[in-house]
Amino acid sequence: MTGIIADTKAIQYHIGLSTQMLCGAKYAFLPGDPDRVNPIAAFLDDARELTQHREYRSALGYVDDIPVLVMSTGIGAPSTGIAIEELARLGVTHFIRLGTTGAIQAHVQLGDLIISEGAVRLEGTSGHYAPIEYPAVPSLALTQKLVEATKLRDYPYQTGIGCSSDSFWPGQERYDSFSGYVPRHLQGSLEEWQRLGVLNFEMESSALFTIARTFGLHAASLCGVIALRTQSEAVQQNVYAQVKERLAIVARDAVRLHHKAHGTPL
Amino acid sequence: MTGIIADTKAIQYHIGLSTQMLCGAKYAFLPGDPDRVNPIAAFLDDARELTQHREYRSALGYVDDIPVLVMSTGIGAPSTGIAIEELARLGVTHFIRLGTTGAIQAHVQLGDLIISEGAVRLEGTSGHYAPIEYPAVPSLALTQKLVEATKLRDYPYQTGIGCSSDSFWPGQERYDSFSGYVPRHLQGSLEEWQRLGVLNFEMESSALFTIARTFGLHAASLCGVIALRTQSEAVQQNVYAQVKERLAIVARDAVRLHHKAHGTPL
Amino acid sequence: MTGIIADTKAIQYHIGLSTQMLCGAKYAFLPGDPDRVNPIAAFLDDARELTQHREYRSALGYVDDIPVLVMSTGIGAPSTGIAIEELARLGVTHFIRLGTTGAIQAHVQLGDLIISEGAVRLEGTSGHYAPIEYPAVPSLALTQKLVEATKLRDYPYQTGIGCSSDSFWPGQERYDSFSGYVPRHLQGSLEEWQRLGVLNFEMESSALFTIARTFGLHAASLCGVIALRTQSEAVQQNVYAQVKERLAIVARDAVRLHHKAHGTPL
Amino acid sequence: MTGIIADTKAIQYHIGLSTQMLCGAKYAFLPGDPDRVNPIAAFLDDARELTQHREYRSALGYVDDIPVLVMSTGIGAPSTGIAIEELARLGVTHFIRLGTTGAIQAHVQLGDLIISEGAVRLEGTSGHYAPIEYPAVPSLALTQKLVEATKLRDYPYQTGIGCSSDSFWPGQERYDSFSGYVPRHLQGSLEEWQRLGVLNFEMESSALFTIARTFGLHAASLCGVIALRTQSEAVQQNVYAQVKERLAIVARDAVRLHHKAHGTPL
Amino acid sequence: MTGIIADTKAIQYHIGLSTQMLCGAKYAFLPGDPDRVNPIAAFLDDARELTQHREYRSALGYVDDIPVLVMSTGIGAPSTGIAIEELARLGVTHFIRLGTTGAIQAHVQLGDLIISEGAVRLEGTSGHYAPIEYPAVPSLALTQKLVEATKLRDYPYQTGIGCSSDSFWPGQERYDSFSGYVPRHLQGSLEEWQRLGVLNFEMESSALFTIARTFGLHAASLCGVIALRTQSEAVQQNVYAQVKERLAIVARDAVRLHHKAHGTPL
Amino acid sequence: MTGIIADTKAIQYHIGLSTQMLCGAKYAFLPGDPDRVNPIAAFLDDARELTQHREYRSALGYVDDIPVLVMSTGIGAPSTGIAIEELARLGVTHFIRLGTTGAIQAHVQLGDLIISEGAVRLEGTSGHYAPIEYPAVPSLALTQKLVEATKLRDYPYQTGIGCSSDSFWPGQERYDSFSGYVPRHLQGSLEEWQRLGVLNFEMESSALFTIARTFGLHAASLCGVIALRTQSEAVQQNVYAQVKERLAIVARDAVRLHHKAHGTPL
Repeated sequence: MTGIIADTKAIQYHIGLSTQMLCGAKYAFLPGDPDRVNPIAAFLDDARELTQHREYRSALGYVDDIPVLVMSTGIGAPSTGIAIEELARLGVTHFIRLGTTGAIQAHVQLGDLIISEGAVRLEGTSGHYAPIEYPAVPSLALTQKLVEATKLRDYPYQTGIGCSSDSFWPGQERYDSFSGYVPRHLQGSLEEWQRLGVLNFEMESSALFTIARTFGLHAASLCGVIALRTQSEAVQQNVYAQVKERLAIVARDAVRLHHKAHGTPL
Repeated sequence: MTGIIADTKAIQYHIGLSTQMLCGAKYAFLPGDPDRVNPIAAFLDDARELTQHREYRSALGYVDDIPVLVMSTGIGAPSTGIAIEELARLGVTHFIRLGTTGAIQAHVQLGDLIISEGAVRLEGTSGHYAPIEYPAVPSLALTQKLVEATKLRDYPYQTGIGCSSDSFWPGQERYDSFSGYVPRHLQGSLEEWQRLGVLNFEMESSALFTIARTFGLHAASLCGVIALRTQSEAVQQNVYAQVKERLAIVARDAVRLHHKAHGTPL
Repeated sequence: MTGIIADTKAIQYHIGLSTQMLCGAKYAFLPGDPDRVNPIAAFLDDARELTQHREYRSALGYVDDIPVLVMSTGIGAPSTGIAIEELARLGVTHFIRLGTTGAIQAHVQLGDLIISEGAVRLEGTSGHYAPIEYPAVPSLALTQKLVEATKLRDYPYQTGIGCSSDSFWPGQERYDSFSGYVPRHLQGSLEEWQRLGVLNFEMESSALFTIARTFGLHAASLCGVIALRTQSEAVQQNVYAQVKERLAIVARDAVRLHHKAHGTPL
Repeated sequence: MTGIIADTKAIQYHIGLSTQMLCGAKYAFLPGDPDRVNPIAAFLDDARELTQHREYRSALGYVDDIPVLVMSTGIGAPSTGIAIEELARLGVTHFIRLGTTGAIQAHVQLGDLIISEGAVRLEGTSGHYAPIEYPAVPSLALTQKLVEATKLRDYPYQTGIGCSSDSFWPGQERYDSFSGYVPRHLQGSLEEWQRLGVLNFEMESSALFTIARTFGLHAASLCGVIALRTQSEAVQQNVYAQVKERLAIVARDAVRLHHKAHGTPL
Repeated sequence: MTGIIADTKAIQYHIGLSTQMLCGAKYAFLPGDPDRVNPIAAFLDDARELTQHREYRSALGYVDDIPVLVMSTGIGAPSTGIAIEELARLGVTHFIRLGTTGAIQAHVQLGDLIISEGAVRLEGTSGHYAPIEYPAVPSLALTQKLVEATKLRDYPYQTGIGCSSDSFWPGQERYDSFSGYVPRHLQGSLEEWQRLGVLNFEMESSALFTIARTFGLHAASLCGVIALRTQSEAVQQNVYAQVKERLAIVARDAVRLHHKAHGTPL
Repeated sequence: MTGIIADTKAIQYHIGLSTQMLCGAKYAFLPGDPDRVNPIAAFLDDARELTQHREYRSALGYVDDIPVLVMSTGIGAPSTGIAIEELARLGVTHFIRLGTTGAIQAHVQLGDLIISEGAVRLEGTSGHYAPIEYPAVPSLALTQKLVEATKLRDYPYQTGIGCSSDSFWPGQERYDSFSGYVPRHLQGSLEEWQRLGVLNFEMESSALFTIARTFGLHAASLCGVIALRTQSEAVQQNVYAQVKERLAIVARDAVRLHHKAHGTPL
């Protein structure tokens, strides 16, 4: 059942990249939106865009001499899963998701960075890789470097767990969907997550953590808070700009710290 | 909890479109890949690209005097769900997915069009809209027009059910993933779907059908067979070109037939 | 493990029919109640009762030269499943359920015919044939002929999805059961189905659709509305009489149309 | 939401019986097949048929002065559930199912009576009355009287648990169905039940036990072994005749013993 | 994969007992608390403590000439499961749990003995031995002897089903836990169990029943009511003392009755 | 519904400890076996046993001036859950499980310490606190201190995920149970966990992680490898002795490091 899809020397079917194009990059930064790829890459040395295929735009840059890929995943766990599969074939071993998020706890502030300690698997893709009782948990070592890098910059941050949802409206218990209806099994879920200590909603981390761990690879997730669900749905544009910058800086610094501590990933 | 996200007059948060930009379009054609938007729109009259935001590229054209939107959904059910939510707010009532697919039944041929009678919900997004026992079934009336349009063109086609998966590898029981492992609950699933009469795999239809129906709206799905999983994973490029053309032609003709039979959708 | 049960030449164990008795019938009309068999058969030519065994009463008649079986299924999915299994062995390929139903949407009227586009699988039998994510969806071609036949008669009708329940009380969220208790997981289910666009409750269609499709056979369902759950539980007897007549007429006409369009089923 | 359906003085909607017709019967014997009602009633004093509506045929007789109803349930849990609901309204408090069954343990013999200690809930109806973790377990007191009555007659018998299935073929892992296919989640289930000590398959007991217990009522189940799944599917007709007689005798004797020990049920 | 753990001649890994130490005991009394072992054994002849390992304290005594083991299980289904596994290897065939419990029905009184007819499987251990649809039901014969022994002593008692929970707080819907939060799927569960006829909560019976039955062994459960959840959480100490005595007496008497009726267990 | 059980000033119902007895301890070390409490406490300053009630033996000691409780949990998640509930009421905020474990990966060696990054929730207790999609993940900060302490001692160690099972035999896919049977849904589970990167089996960590996190408290888990499931079930006694010592030393050192970095827990 193998074919061109499994040919690791070829250009990968969905993301349009090849081993050669990656220049040996072991680290990948993964924003969701193609339009965030180049702004993030701009914080790397010698950055250049590689290609765009479907929702996957890619750029390559350097942290000191360490090659780092930046690639968008598109929205949601399925396209993120395809990204991880194809990047893993090309040799990437360390994945850092860089996202934006809405917070659901009162003590979280706009602009806070959230470094994930784990994710609620409210999506279907991770279930194709591991049973639902399996923990969606990031790499301890890589996550620790995100903490250190954030502390060194003195940026406000939180660590804790988030919820990764397969929908933007009912899975996050938003009632302003087209139908205005949230099915019974999700009614009250927002308050439940709040009571259980969940910090925020987004749509990709639990798949990233689960897939990477079942592959024996390493993933972490860093999100910037651009909306407070406890107050309003409005996205704060000035916060957004600051957050995007900090995500790129922390990720870059974390690669440097991680590489120093652990050497070149195999 | 409302905010800018629910403002139906504003440009929608994810897709970047407004009511005004749609010119009253009630019909939308939904390919997955942004790069298929303009080629499909080229079969409409007076087609022009509207915008691109994230994985959502959009164009508008006409079938006779009927405005039709073409917009990519990106890969997977979550981004498709967001597309439906935001298009529904802007007044779209009839959705036709135009996709490519791999067939898993021996009697299906390369190049066949598959008109969906229903979809296996092997994804998480539809579960945020309706319990899993709810049928992912297209609009009878709209689907019937796809059948009629295909017959009029004398294109080879199949009707039947497909399987919409949240992953490209394990959910479709591909063993050439990075880890080579398919979890136990999916081992043997390909043969099971074959035994149960499933024609093909793709990744979006069951969410489209479920969400549209819970919204009281209308959806259908038309896919072209570009690979035969029973033989090889290789995609046939010449078939691909022909299929893409036929998808656009049949969808266009179906809108004409549907509009003639049912009048302007409300 | 085969035995007399699998002997397709013998009289079938539960339904008491043999191939010879069916005279080559490919179409079967399936009411639930044994007492509705002969009244339905009366709308066919040369109708005669065949036999009765357990809840299965059967009669045979003709539409032009096309032999058609009428057989009761008894109440519920399990006895319906046995009926389909044994009829399939005897060569029946097209099943049309003719039932009565209670509607749960305000826009449905007493006496309306409901032509099913799909069914919620709130029963256990279909799960013995296909995983719960599999769609309980009728045959597009056969369903389309029910629509055409109904339109030609100008009978008021609806198309849409229904809910097939394994119980008459709690599964349909009736509180006038013996205990008056509806378990928590079904509390609010009636309103949920209403919000999700479900038209009506009955007890057999989802098993019929699922089993027939996994067999590669063809099923459709036509029900007459004899009670409006949104108003009262009372069954309207005059409506009931009219509905029973219309069910038989539409089914008969649909066979004629289907046979004309598709020829003799294999 | 009440209506004629909940009127306990009226003739019940599905079974066609009223309080008056039952003459105060608290005990009901429940075979599946309408054709077994009168033969069972023949073992009672002054037996007479009451009515037949759908698959529910009923007769009334006496054990000494104790009135006892005999009524068929039809095949499967859904129609059995309706029977229990409507009989409970009419005042029946003690239900004894009298069925035939196929045994799956090597130590069980043709003609053995199986007195149920509990049932595997492989059906959907009981789940509409209680969560799946709830035990489908008969009345200890009533079951004990079945044991005593059987011992007094010196009939060979077994006590143990059975499996109540919503289908005759795949749920009982029969491969001689029309499609010959058993879904993956039921493949190996027959051996699993054997390994877990299950004695036999039938289709109604778990719903009977669950519903009666949630109603605060009392149920028991007595089945005669007419086929040995470990050897052949063939039903032994001479065994069948003997078994039917013994079922009626034991049930009658058990009513006498139970009434003597516990007095008139409330 | 065998090793010292499966060596039935050796001292068992967790409970610290060997075949030799058991002196041929076929019956075991199982309290939860190690501190209840010796007081229960004091009602047997020639009782002596055997050993203590982890939460498993054990003593041996006699009923007439019948050797009986008393061993604590610790709290919860997992440690109970280990106890049953290791005792079964050593030849124990009949298990009687002796516990204390809180009642949730208004008609149950402080000091009542509850003889279990079955248990709700609200715990995870039994699911490792049998699918969740399998009934957690005690041995009919052994349970019947508990009833007889209780009647002979004229102690007030109830028979019915209980709920075995994996937690003391949320699974029993107690809101005075540390967080004060009960997850949504357990909110309302106390009232549901009450409506469905459940008498009481404890934490071990369903695992005991399920495991013993899948092993072809025999289990029963006898609990004394020391708190009434419908009134207060307060445990009544004087009731507690009386209950503990009665549990031991009834179990002892039941062994005598059972042995007399059924002879030496194999 | 509150009562003596919720009285935080009283001696706790199950563990037999009061606030006063804890002397302000915020840290607790949690072995499973009561017999490991004093040996672990011996590595603390001024250690003394506090009490024993049921399977809960407790001792108190100091790391510098920091009071630390050592208390056994008994085997399994339910008794561990009760321990966490009652300790939390008494003011404990940081929990470190100290266990022994069998490893299932070939690269893990006897005597290795395993510092948990997360746990598979193959048990029922955690499900009473949070839905199954919630990650059983330890405190990042506390876990990081276990890593640092282990590195400083230069002990061989692994970080990764484990599986917490509600049974010792079938849940860990051991076939040398009494019945020798592992239910179908667990057959192949050992290999699956190996393929998905799970390092080891034990029975308590996932409940500890889940409950602590839903309480807003902090937990970590450190286990010593005393058996290699891939080779033999035999426990190595000399390894066992060394491992027990290292567990105590690392936990003690980690408290010192954690207190230094984070100050006195609130």
